[in-house]
Amino acid sequence: MKRKLKLTLEYDGARYCGWQSQPNGTAIQDILQQTLERITKQKTTVIGSGRTDAGVHAEAQVAHFITESGMKPLEFLKALNSLLPNDIVIKEVKEVPLEFHAQMSAVGKIYRYTVLTRDHPSALSYGRCLYTPYPLDLAAMRRGCRYLVGEHDFTSFRGPNCKAMSPVRTIKKITVWKDGAFIHFQFEGTGFLKYMIRIIMGTLLEVGHGRIPARRVREILEARDRQQAGPTAQPQGLFLVQVFYGKDNNGKKKVAEMRKK
Amino acid sequence: MKRKLKLTLEYDGARYCGWQSQPNGTAIQDILQQTLERITKQKTTVIGSGRTDAGVHAEAQVAHFITESGMKPLEFLKALNSLLPNDIVIKEVKEVPLEFHAQMSAVGKIYRYTVLTRDHPSALSYGRCLYTPYPLDLAAMRRGCRYLVGEHDFTSFRGPNCKAMSPVRTIKKITVWKDGAFIHFQFEGTGFLKYMIRIIMGTLLEVGHGRIPARRVREILEARDRQQAGPTAQPQGLFLVQVFYGKDNNGKKKVAEMRKK
Repeated sequence: MKRKLKLTLEYDGARYCGWQSQPNGTAIQDILQQTLERITKQKTTVIGSGRTDAGVHAEAQVAHFITESGMKPLEFLKALNSLLPNDIVIKEVKEVPLEFHAQMSAVGKIYRYTVLTRDHPSALSYGRCLYTPYPLDLAAMRRGCRYLVGEHDFTSFRGPNCKAMSPVRTIKKITVWKDGAFIHFQFEGTGFLKYMIRIIMGTLLEVGHGRIPARRVREILEARDRQQAGPTAQPQGLFLVQVFYGKDNNGKKKVAEMRKK
Repeated sequence: MKRKLKLTLEYDGARYCGWQSQPNGTAIQDILQQTLERITKQKTTVIGSGRTDAGVHAEAQVAHFITESGMKPLEFLKALNSLLPNDIVIKEVKEVPLEFHAQMSAVGKIYRYTVLTRDHPSALSYGRCLYTPYPLDLAAMRRGCRYLVGEHDFTSFRGPNCKAMSPVRTIKKITVWKDGAFIHFQFEGTGFLKYMIRIIMGTLLEVGHGRIPARRVREILEARDRQQAGPTAQPQGLFLVQVFYGKDNNGKKKVAEMRKK
């Protein structure tokens, strides 16, 4: 009998070409599929909530797969974690209705981008943040963020070859906080275009470094022109924090709020 | 003219055989010396506040070196960080009196050991904590800690070939706190013997897992016999957090407190 299982997983993206299978390089999706095939002896396809780029990390990516195996969710969790490399960990396995789809059923996501600014980088956070020795005008960056919140056409912040049907997305909330010399930018929205957060961060960093004023973010947004925005910030500071679904996940309240909008 | 410079550095110990030069393997000390020699074109010896084992990390190890170079401290910081590998970072360079000695002048240290307990390990904290799937009796572990605070003969918690003259050390404080599924054990003391914190942790984990009662920690301490204590816990959960000196560092208050004891 066919069953659908939902995986929640954490990974360090450093060694991978990203979530999605690629002609060159090893993707996290490949590793998961190979490991599931080893366990179930059945050809298995794993579908994720969306791609993460090479070098991007996940605290809680979500994926699903269909299996005819009778193994219990907890048995899958233990078998997967005993075979997966140390930089990919399954946090939860749950049986879900066959209608569930990790990508299509997702109603929201949270990403976090971390910047470190001081006169020296960090050894222990290397590969987990963007380092800049130049001070940042955080107040200006926060003002820049405000123009991005809401439903907008994010064409200016969309990477090349983005396959999304529409460039319109809703950023529900951007939260910015400091933790010593680290500054975290957390984006909660209905979904994000290819490179969207990295291009937003590249633009906000131009604001923070005083190269453009905060109000320029609004003009860039309205221009609907990728050329106007800043560079695509490096992937290493980006974390997929959470994916929200309608009913069956821990983000019930947030999803409900998001749907009301 | 000879000058003495004090380095404060952060490192990820994963790729190294520890702080101190060894016949086999690359030590953090070696990398620092080679890099300083590249910069100053002079043979340079770097003395650390003490060893850290292979796999042990440092948030703020302290070391010193003598140089005839006229470079300013900030120039050293920038030159070192531009040449060092990404997992070793110089946080501060300061000129100190020639009497300063990174090891001999140290009056106290803080180490932290991190344990993760839940039904799955962590991808993003791999190599930065000890993972156990078995629940821990934290209250019992805290009770066990209490027997260790104070001035004691720590022979039972001393690794083989420890070169310290005396096995007597003072643990000023052990602080235990939870952060989600992570539990941090922070040890503040006048100094620590070889493997001391790792053997203490191996013993506390036996208490936490219910294999021995908390009061057994006292008996082990009093036995002055390494055979009575638990195994040496893996190095990956251990961080050197801070080294205290008499006058010239940021830990003034703590050192003063420590000296009063």
